Formats: sequence, structure tokens, C-alpha cells
Amino acid sequence: MARPKRPPSDTRKIFGERVRTERYARQLTLEDLAEKASMNWSYIAQIERGERNISIDNMTALADGLGVPLRDLL
Amino acid sequence: MARPKRPPSDTRKIFGERVRTERYARQLTLEDLAEKASMNWSYIAQIERGERNISIDNMTALADGLGVPLRDLL
Repeated sequence: MARPKRPPSDTRKIFGERVRTERYARQLTLEDLAEKASMNWSYIAQIERGERNISIDNMTALADGLGVPLRDLL
Repeated sequence: MARPKRPPSDTRKIFGERVRTERYARQLTLEDLAEKASMNWSYIAQIERGERNISIDNMTALADGLGVPLRDLL
């Protein structure tokens, strides 16, 4: 797509912070959540820091792994 | 990541339907929204049909283009 690049969204950072907050609230390690969400723990660490442009399917897997509605992470 | 593949999430479909609903409510064409969101119109058409695993940055751009909070599209 020949469109100008947008900077990373603030939403990434908000999403990552909420994932971490909910993970801590459930006393889950990155490895625990990785297992529940069928995802790599180091990828989740990057998400929590807002470093990755996560997809809707992976956002859904994290929300499901945490047991919260996805909209509550945004 | 050597993990089993997950099927496409239902969230994709819900997100796409809500984008279309909000776009219609504002009487915007795909081209109008594409312009506002700095995105290709054919990509938005695929999103509305739930065919693409859209990223959080593109979800944010669509929500901003529609003028709705992202959480309202989920």
C-alpha cells in the first residue's frame, strides 16, 4: 500500500499495560499466560512493553487466556 | 513459534461487522474511510468481511477514521 507510514499507536502501549495488569492480578507468570494463550512468552513480554503491532487474533488469544473480554484491554 | 495454529478468531468477524455498521451510519464509502484512515479501500473491504488478521495499529486507524473508541468496535 503506497501510503505514508503512521507512527506506532498509543493503543499498543495501553493494551500492553492492561495485559500486564490483568496477568499480575491473576498471579500468572509470562510462561503461564503463554501456555494458556498458545503463544511464546517472549512475544508476550514484547506486547506488554507495547513493542509489537499485535494482530486481532493474538489479542483475542491473550484476552481468552486471561479470561477477560478483549474490549476491557483497550 | 512452534505452536499449533489457532483458527481465525470470531473477533475478526465482529470487528468487521461493527466497522461496516459505523461506516454506514456515517454515510461513508470505503474510499472515504480509506482516505481518513490512510489505508487501502480494498483492505478495508476485506476487514469488514472478517478476512484479515488486522493489527492493533490498523484497528486504531480505522476507529480514529470513524471517530469511535476502538473498544466500541469489539
